[in-house]
Amino acid sequence: MIRVGVVGYGYWGPNLVRNFSEADGSRVTAVCDARAERLALAAKRCPGIEVYASAWDLIHSANVDAVVIATPVSSHFDLALSALQAGKHVLVEKPLTATAGQALRLIDEAERRRLTLMVDHTFVYTGAVRRIRQEVESGALGPIYYYDSVRVNLGLFQHDVNVLWDLAVHDLSIMDYVLAARPCAVSATGVSHVPNEPENVAYLTLFFETSLIAHIHVNWLAPVKVRRTLIGGASKMIVYDDLEPSEKIKIYDKGITVTSRPEHVYEMLISYRTGDMHAPQLPMTEALQVEAKHFLRCVGGLEKPVSGGEAGLHVVSLLEAASQSLARRGQPVEIHSVRAAA
Amino acid sequence: MIRVGVVGYGYWGPNLVRNFSEADGSRVTAVCDARAERLALAAKRCPGIEVYASAWDLIHSANVDAVVIATPVSSHFDLALSALQAGKHVLVEKPLTATAGQALRLIDEAERRRLTLMVDHTFVYTGAVRRIRQEVESGALGPIYYYDSVRVNLGLFQHDVNVLWDLAVHDLSIMDYVLAARPCAVSATGVSHVPNEPENVAYLTLFFETSLIAHIHVNWLAPVKVRRTLIGGASKMIVYDDLEPSEKIKIYDKGITVTSRPEHVYEMLISYRTGDMHAPQLPMTEALQVEAKHFLRCVGGLEKPVSGGEAGLHVVSLLEAASQSLARRGQPVEIHSVRAAA
Amino acid sequence: MIRVGVVGYGYWGPNLVRNFSEADGSRVTAVCDARAERLALAAKRCPGIEVYASAWDLIHSANVDAVVIATPVSSHFDLALSALQAGKHVLVEKPLTATAGQALRLIDEAERRRLTLMVDHTFVYTGAVRRIRQEVESGALGPIYYYDSVRVNLGLFQHDVNVLWDLAVHDLSIMDYVLAARPCAVSATGVSHVPNEPENVAYLTLFFETSLIAHIHVNWLAPVKVRRTLIGGASKMIVYDDLEPSEKIKIYDKGITVTSRPEHVYEMLISYRTGDMHAPQLPMTEALQVEAKHFLRCVGGLEKPVSGGEAGLHVVSLLEAASQSLARRGQPVEIHSVRAAA
Amino acid sequence: MIRVGVVGYGYWGPNLVRNFSEADGSRVTAVCDARAERLALAAKRCPGIEVYASAWDLIHSANVDAVVIATPVSSHFDLALSALQAGKHVLVEKPLTATAGQALRLIDEAERRRLTLMVDHTFVYTGAVRRIRQEVESGALGPIYYYDSVRVNLGLFQHDVNVLWDLAVHDLSIMDYVLAARPCAVSATGVSHVPNEPENVAYLTLFFETSLIAHIHVNWLAPVKVRRTLIGGASKMIVYDDLEPSEKIKIYDKGITVTSRPEHVYEMLISYRTGDMHAPQLPMTEALQVEAKHFLRCVGGLEKPVSGGEAGLHVVSLLEAASQSLARRGQPVEIHSVRAAA
Repeated sequence: MIRVGVVGYGYWGPNLVRNFSEADGSRVTAVCDARAERLALAAKRCPGIEVYASAWDLIHSANVDAVVIATPVSSHFDLALSALQAGKHVLVEKPLTATAGQALRLIDEAERRRLTLMVDHTFVYTGAVRRIRQEVESGALGPIYYYDSVRVNLGLFQHDVNVLWDLAVHDLSIMDYVLAARPCAVSATGVSHVPNEPENVAYLTLFFETSLIAHIHVNWLAPVKVRRTLIGGASKMIVYDDLEPSEKIKIYDKGITVTSRPEHVYEMLISYRTGDMHAPQLPMTEALQVEAKHFLRCVGGLEKPVSGGEAGLHVVSLLEAASQSLARRGQPVEIHSVRAAA
Repeated sequence: MIRVGVVGYGYWGPNLVRNFSEADGSRVTAVCDARAERLALAAKRCPGIEVYASAWDLIHSANVDAVVIATPVSSHFDLALSALQAGKHVLVEKPLTATAGQALRLIDEAERRRLTLMVDHTFVYTGAVRRIRQEVESGALGPIYYYDSVRVNLGLFQHDVNVLWDLAVHDLSIMDYVLAARPCAVSATGVSHVPNEPENVAYLTLFFETSLIAHIHVNWLAPVKVRRTLIGGASKMIVYDDLEPSEKIKIYDKGITVTSRPEHVYEMLISYRTGDMHAPQLPMTEALQVEAKHFLRCVGGLEKPVSGGEAGLHVVSLLEAASQSLARRGQPVEIHSVRAAA
Repeated sequence: MIRVGVVGYGYWGPNLVRNFSEADGSRVTAVCDARAERLALAAKRCPGIEVYASAWDLIHSANVDAVVIATPVSSHFDLALSALQAGKHVLVEKPLTATAGQALRLIDEAERRRLTLMVDHTFVYTGAVRRIRQEVESGALGPIYYYDSVRVNLGLFQHDVNVLWDLAVHDLSIMDYVLAARPCAVSATGVSHVPNEPENVAYLTLFFETSLIAHIHVNWLAPVKVRRTLIGGASKMIVYDDLEPSEKIKIYDKGITVTSRPEHVYEMLISYRTGDMHAPQLPMTEALQVEAKHFLRCVGGLEKPVSGGEAGLHVVSLLEAASQSLARRGQPVEIHSVRAAA
Repeated sequence: MIRVGVVGYGYWGPNLVRNFSEADGSRVTAVCDARAERLALAAKRCPGIEVYASAWDLIHSANVDAVVIATPVSSHFDLALSALQAGKHVLVEKPLTATAGQALRLIDEAERRRLTLMVDHTFVYTGAVRRIRQEVESGALGPIYYYDSVRVNLGLFQHDVNVLWDLAVHDLSIMDYVLAARPCAVSATGVSHVPNEPENVAYLTLFFETSLIAHIHVNWLAPVKVRRTLIGGASKMIVYDDLEPSEKIKIYDKGITVTSRPEHVYEMLISYRTGDMHAPQLPMTEALQVEAKHFLRCVGGLEKPVSGGEAGLHVVSLLEAASQSLARRGQPVEIHSVRAAA
């Protein structure tokens, strides 16, 4: 029975507590939050749990084997490092850290101590994203042409990170899981509409060595909620709408066929293909439940993290490059291997 | 009775013929198309019309007072210039020309000869876009924060221009009509998935002197058709979905209220406002009918073109800058007054 | 070349004129309408056509081989009978006649004179309905459990027939085409909200010898337009939404599996099946074009009408029974073979 | 502090437990379910709660002041009567009882003992339905023309009641709350697709003294989930879609204007009105939370039940009449005052 302590009982914390409470093989023994009213709520809902105002105390509690961190990004590194140093396994809310350097440091610490370090890239544990990966891997889509995501709503403005770090992180983690290739450069634009606050609207293009292009549109200040991804392949195309109650994924047998025209050497003949649409039935299991089970098995040495430190590092590296480009109005920034640079 | 000749009887030409035929004050006297089968179709549908394989002949027909040009972009300048030089009023399909220099030349020619030069920015004649302009001008939206448009489908790949010139041109013409401010810089990215052919996916960010940001996503290779624009203002926000049969415009009384927090000088307190949604009834008149009437009144000296040469020039200038940025992976390109440069 | 005369140039007439004009093997030689302004419009659009204020004159024109009747229901019988008696082939707008007796009379007249009598059950010529029939016939759906249609909008109130005769007629003609079985009884309810005018809201249940049940909801006074049919089979189920631009038909691999429970002899164990959804690509040809060609081939003796007099008679018989039930607040009315009764 | 015991921990029971646990002024002290695994689940989730396999024991527990009954319909009467006789306040899942006679008996028992008897007509506690009632009561819609509801899905087949008692009960309770008038007759049709099991598809028309008509379509065997109600008034019309995450209610300024035509004494001139649509922002509070608070205030003598025994009786009376009509293929059944008959 792995004893889990959850640091941060805000928006996401209660979901983590619920899932680790109901999972076989774990129970939640401690919760920490600096806000007294949140701590009181946790205590009311979970009679008998240890509650702490200080993360330090939770991390060093003798009743905690694994620490789950659901706090603002700026605190991830210190908390995770402390937990690892205290010999605890760690699951960190996305993004893993605020810098690639911090991510590298955590990876090293976890490796050295043979502890599990995992980042909560929730979407890679959904039935929808797993199915998309299958379709891509199987070659059913053909070579991938583009990956385009819109993730906007009237949402919780963050004070310590811009909207890329809060929302685009989901798309980057999905892409990291679904696509075989990794971006070689990024161009980002965006703006803040609140003085002295981080950008609340942003657009991010990711370039690859091939003709694959990816784009992410994120916005905290939209009148409607949109969670829609288009994935275009040479053979088939996918529309993934996470707000659909069922039929989250629609696979279209559509595309173009290109042939060279004898009469126009330099002009291609393009014909259009429109076939059937197919929406596969997806497993309805809650992603966080799948992820909690996976984390427990990783802690138990039975599996390797799907979203481990390296995945977290990769996503943070892209976010760093994107923020640099954003500050320069879209000027492209190349992605170098962080490993090599370190 | 203004006698209209239509050059190009492809996708859009028949709509132009129909509207100028049914409009009071005009009749279509001639149609031209280099493709014999299209010309035959025009002849069958419009008994008694003059048909020409050569645009030159139509332009110089004594039975034509005004020439409407619906041909590929690369031919716009030559045809429009010839028509103006032949003393004919001209309505050109969007975009006006392939370069800003060409647009300037046409404007001068038309001014010198006191002829009407108009570009078919169809959307500015729709009830939806006119209503959006009213909402913006009246101040109901408050200061505009962002303008975001998605215009994708599985569509007609063009051979002479990239997807920005084919699709983003609509959004640029709408923005030109709706927004008071003009962009000061652009950053564009995109890619072609067909060898030796223009980019079929593109993303364009437009920067302004204020915190207003605009973004346009266009794609000829999407599995679904999307025509959706989000316009965020400080007071209200609009969702404009051109594919909705009714309720094309929805106005949301939503947004944020920002107050400074005494305890955190540098951190703003952001609260959210979610009020009613309102979908105004819009006039259902076909845009091209409104535009045709307007063109006829301009020719008659009764009105000034809403989408005249200057509007066309402005849009072409943005497209030129966007294509430059696109070639350099998003590197920002500043917009200078074309007039000044010329 | 079959010369077609169209009686009635109102809402539907122009579509008939256009399709018979463009079809190979026919041309429209005459149009008739009692309203001068409609006749003027027809003349303007179709230069050289004969125009008549009197249907009688059109029917007896020497330049007309086939008469297409698009007038109010109450006039169908007289016009169609006259046309047949004048030796002309006839295509009548739905419903064929105002009574089953009239339909029988027309069928006899056409048979005796070896003329084509067809009713414009437009929907049976759509790609969507043809595909539904294929799915039903092939057994893919399994035994059909129910057929449920909603057809409402803010629409053209008719003065001579109630909403069943105007809108439910579509569903009855589709059911006649798609389902193997015929109803044995009906129960209808409805109400008029305008004094002295026919019912503008109605509900119609159709019973069959099996456990199949059908229901049709029609309404001229709805705030939104709905055209949605659910067809439930033991193996699969279809959602047919005619307002979808594409994906009009969605086939769901969903249903129940029933097994008897050993422990509860009289209670069945019901388990649920939710599988994939599939939206077949449908031909996009305009239904009226398909129908016009078919009519011309029937006139030429090459095909038998898919929607001939018998189909028209069957639908009218159901409408008569439905109106009787409606007048008695849903009291069931049995359907007898009209043939036998006649 | 009112101590609540919940009988039945199936689909709905956990929601009742959660809401009465979190409400001020109550706590859940006991849960009962005949199924051991459900009882174990309740015990795990609510440490310290009393768990009973027998409802009798829970009802007579000294630690229970109010009994909430969430069991199959056939058991409602016995359980509620026992609870009232034991001096406990009672909240019963909808429908109140299986017969109108039973409902009358409960009402009498509760009145005699001055105990609160309430039925869980959940929807009348939603922001959407409360807003609809306001719109109707204020006269904004004008006289109501029709009330049309569709409530279908692939759902939990019940063994002791047909689909009307399971799903239409929601609509009848909403109508009871929203409309001023009460039905005078009903006509219902339906069918069962599982041998020896109750009807799983049904259609119910309700007649009123005026031209108001209501219709409810319910189905346990539909491929898609639909929860949509159209309410047509002379002045405005409402579309209420309970599956919309926001904008559940849309109010359309649409309709017809009827004038008599001087020239046609018996034919009315009908013109159409299409104005704006308006979607009011609704409170997002969970209905069951509102209802739980209300029940507690009723128990405390501070309020009168909005959905008390009389509302429950009325709905059950309609369901009884509907079932009679359904068995006779839609033959209309008049509604008499149950009070008078009793």
